[in-house]
Amino acid sequence: MLTQDRREALLAIEGLANLKYELNNMNPADAGDYIAALPPKEQALTFRLLAKGSAASVFEYLPSDVQEMLIESLHAREVQALVDQMSPDDRAELFDELPARVVKRLLSQLSPSEREATALILGYPEGTAGRVMTTEYVRLREDLSVAQAIQKIRKLDSDKETIYYAYLTDGERRLLGVVSLRQLLFAEAETPVQELAHEAIITVQTTAPQEEVARLLKRYDLLAVPVVDLENRLVGIVTVDDVVDILEEEATEDIQKLSGISGGDEQALSAPLTKVQKRLPWLLGNIVLYIGAASAIAPFQTTISLIPVLAVVMPILSNTSGNVGIQALSVTVRSLAVGEVSPLDVLRILRKEIQAGLLNALALGLALGALTLLWASSTERWVGLVAALVMALNVIVAASFGALLPMILKRFKQDPALVSGPLLTTLLDTAGFFTFLGLASLFIHQFKVG
Amino acid sequence: MLTQDRREALLAIEGLANLKYELNNMNPADAGDYIAALPPKEQALTFRLLAKGSAASVFEYLPSDVQEMLIESLHAREVQALVDQMSPDDRAELFDELPARVVKRLLSQLSPSEREATALILGYPEGTAGRVMTTEYVRLREDLSVAQAIQKIRKLDSDKETIYYAYLTDGERRLLGVVSLRQLLFAEAETPVQELAHEAIITVQTTAPQEEVARLLKRYDLLAVPVVDLENRLVGIVTVDDVVDILEEEATEDIQKLSGISGGDEQALSAPLTKVQKRLPWLLGNIVLYIGAASAIAPFQTTISLIPVLAVVMPILSNTSGNVGIQALSVTVRSLAVGEVSPLDVLRILRKEIQAGLLNALALGLALGALTLLWASSTERWVGLVAALVMALNVIVAASFGALLPMILKRFKQDPALVSGPLLTTLLDTAGFFTFLGLASLFIHQFKVG
Repeated sequence: MLTQDRREALLAIEGLANLKYELNNMNPADAGDYIAALPPKEQALTFRLLAKGSAASVFEYLPSDVQEMLIESLHAREVQALVDQMSPDDRAELFDELPARVVKRLLSQLSPSEREATALILGYPEGTAGRVMTTEYVRLREDLSVAQAIQKIRKLDSDKETIYYAYLTDGERRLLGVVSLRQLLFAEAETPVQELAHEAIITVQTTAPQEEVARLLKRYDLLAVPVVDLENRLVGIVTVDDVVDILEEEATEDIQKLSGISGGDEQALSAPLTKVQKRLPWLLGNIVLYIGAASAIAPFQTTISLIPVLAVVMPILSNTSGNVGIQALSVTVRSLAVGEVSPLDVLRILRKEIQAGLLNALALGLALGALTLLWASSTERWVGLVAALVMALNVIVAASFGALLPMILKRFKQDPALVSGPLLTTLLDTAGFFTFLGLASLFIHQFKVG
Repeated sequence: MLTQDRREALLAIEGLANLKYELNNMNPADAGDYIAALPPKEQALTFRLLAKGSAASVFEYLPSDVQEMLIESLHAREVQALVDQMSPDDRAELFDELPARVVKRLLSQLSPSEREATALILGYPEGTAGRVMTTEYVRLREDLSVAQAIQKIRKLDSDKETIYYAYLTDGERRLLGVVSLRQLLFAEAETPVQELAHEAIITVQTTAPQEEVARLLKRYDLLAVPVVDLENRLVGIVTVDDVVDILEEEATEDIQKLSGISGGDEQALSAPLTKVQKRLPWLLGNIVLYIGAASAIAPFQTTISLIPVLAVVMPILSNTSGNVGIQALSVTVRSLAVGEVSPLDVLRILRKEIQAGLLNALALGLALGALTLLWASSTERWVGLVAALVMALNVIVAASFGALLPMILKRFKQDPALVSGPLLTTLLDTAGFFTFLGLASLFIHQFKVG
C-alpha cells in the first residue's frame, strides 16, 4: 500500500521531470494507487509521464472507472498501444466495462492474434474458467528433450503469464501432460520431457465456475491450472494470482449476501445510489415478509393488553433465536463455500447442530425464564415459564433451520447464501411470536390468570 | 475433490497390493482425503501402504486430528522419517497441535538443521509472518553471473519451497535484492545477477500480522515474499499457497465474528461441545446486554396496554433497522479487510452511508407507516405516523453506526469485526424501542388519544 507519507512526498515534487523519474521507478501497483487518488483532471496528465513499458503495467492496476476515463482522454494511438500490451484476460475484463462501440473499435485495431485471444475469452460467460483464463501460456511438443524444452522456453516472448509450467500437447492441441520448470531444471539435459510429465493432469473445462477453479488450485497447491474444451484441447490457463482475487470476491459475496445485499459486490465507497439499489429492494421485500411475523402478533392484542410484560419479553426471544439461527447459518454457508462439507453431510451436520442446540436451549431457556421475573409482577410469574419453554424450543428450531436451509439450497445446486440472515430471522420470528403469544393465551384461558 | 464414485471404487478394491498401487499413484491431496474419511482403525493400516516419498506428502494433507492419531500409532522410526521430511512451516503447524511432551521428543530426534529451522519458526507468535514462513528458500551470493546462479540452483536440494525466486544476500545474510528464475532464464549467461536484481524489494518483518503479508502478496501479484528481521537479515519466505490459505481463514473469521461466534474458526462439523463453547458465552452475553433493550420497553407497559398495536409494529421496526445496520456493518468490515478503504476514509464513507440512508429512510418510513394502518384501529391511526418517523430516524442511525463502529475500532488498531451484527442490533433496539414508545406515550398524553 502506498503510505500516506510517501503519497505526500510525491505530491510535493515540483518538477515534472522528477515526478516522471519517481513514477517510472515505482512498483506499478503503487503508481496506479497514486494516479487513482489524484483529482480526475490530473490523472491523464500524470499517466502520460509513464514510459511505454510501465504505462501498460500501471494501467492494469487502475480501477475500471479511471481506465475508462483514460481511454476517453488519451490519443487513439496511445490507447491502442496500451490495450495491445495488456494480457488477454485483463483486456477482456476491461472490455466488459467499456461501452460496446469503444470495444468494437479497440478490438478492430488489435493485432490479429491478440484479437482472436480476446474474442475467445469474451465468448465465455462471466464467472467461468474460460472468462478468467489467459491464453498466454507455454505449450511444448511432446517429443522434445529437456535441453530442447528449456531452449524453447528461453526463446519465447517474455510476456507469457507464467513460464513455470509448460503444457505438452499433440498436433491437435490436445493436452497430454504438464512439466514444471523446476522439473526441467533438475533433470538431465537428454531426458525426453515426456518422461517427466505428469499425465494425471488436473484440468478444468472452459465452462467450470470460477470458484471451482479456485478451489482446485488451492486444494492441489498449484500455480496454474490448464483450461480445456470439450475435446480436451488446451485453450488457456488460470494462474494463482487470479485465483487469489476470485477467492476474495467469493468471500465478499458470501458475507454481503448473508447480510442481505443483492449482488454481493458493494464496496464501502460505492456511490450512494448504488448502495440504495443493492439494499433497498431487499429491505422492502423483507418488510413485506415480516407482515407475516407481525400478523402472528396482531390476533393476540387482547392478551398483550392484559399482560403487557409479554411485549417486554418478546424482543429478547426474537433477538436471541435470530442470533442462534445466524450463527448456524454462517458456519454452514462458509463450510460449504470452502468445501469442508458437501450436501451429503446434511445429517451429520444436523445431528451436531441439534446436540449443541439442546445445550444452548437449556441455558438460554433458563436465562430468559429468570430474566422475565425482573419485569413480571407477582401474578405474571408464569410468563417466565412460558418464555423459557418457547425460548428453548426456538433455539433448537433456529439452529436446525440455520444449518438445514443452506444445505438444501446447495443440494439443488442453488447458492446457499441465498438464505440471508435477515430472511432466516423473519421466519423464526413468525414462528416464535405465534408460539409464545399462543401459549400465553392458552395459559390465560386455562388457568384464568392475569 | 475425491468424488463419491472414485471413493467407492477405491473402497471396493479387494487386494491390499492393488490399493497400495492406487494410493501411491494418486494425488497426495486425494489420498489424504481418502484416508481421512476411513474409520479410525483402518487409517494407520492404510497409511502404511504409502511409499516413503508419498507418505510425507500425503501426511501434510491430513487433518490435524488424523495426524495426531498417526503419530501415536506409527512406529517411532516411521514417525521420525515423516516429520523430518515435512517442510519447516508445516511441521511447526503440526507441533502446535501436539502435546508438549511429544513435540519435545520429536524435536530432539530431528536433524540439527531441521530442528533449528523449526525452533526458529515456533519462536514467533501465532498469526505472524515468522510463524507462517518457511526457511527453505534459495539464497545466492551477490557476485554470481546468471550462468553460475542457474548452476547453483540446479545443484540445490529439490525440496526448496520455491525455486522461482532467488534472494541475493551479503555475507551477513542481509537482503540485497531478488531475481526471478524467469529473469535468469531470459538473460545472457555472463550477466551479473546483481544487474537483474530488483533492489526495491517488498519485504515483511517477522512480526508482521499474517493478513498483512497476504495483502501484500496479493497486491503485488507475487509468488513469495521475503521475511526479514529487524536488521534486514533474511530469515524466511512466505509463499503464495500459504497466502491463499491465510486469506480464506481471515474471510471465515470475519464472517463468523460478524455472526457472533468467538474465535471465528468453527466448522460445520466441529464437535457439538466446541460449538456450544464458541457460541453460548456470546449468546448469554448478548441476552444480558439485551436487558437494556427490554428495560427500554418495561416502563411503557401502560402505554402498550392502552395501544397494543404498538407491540405489533415494534418488531418490524427492530427487525428492519437491525437489517440496515448489518448491511452497512458487513460492507464496511469487508472493505477494511480487503484494504479497499482505510480508517482515513471514515468521513467519505459516512457521507455516502448517510446519503444512501436518507433515501432508504424515506422509503422504509413510508412503508412502515402504511403497514401500520393494516393493524391499527380507526383511533390508532396516529401510530402510523410515529412508526414512520421513528423508522426513518432509526435507518439513518443504523447505517451510520454500522459504518462508523468498525472504522473506529480499526482506527484504534482493534479488529473491526468485533462489532458483530447482533451487538449492533442490540444497541439499535435499545435506542429504537425507547424512542418509539417514548414518542407514542408523549402522543397519548399530549393529545389524549387512545
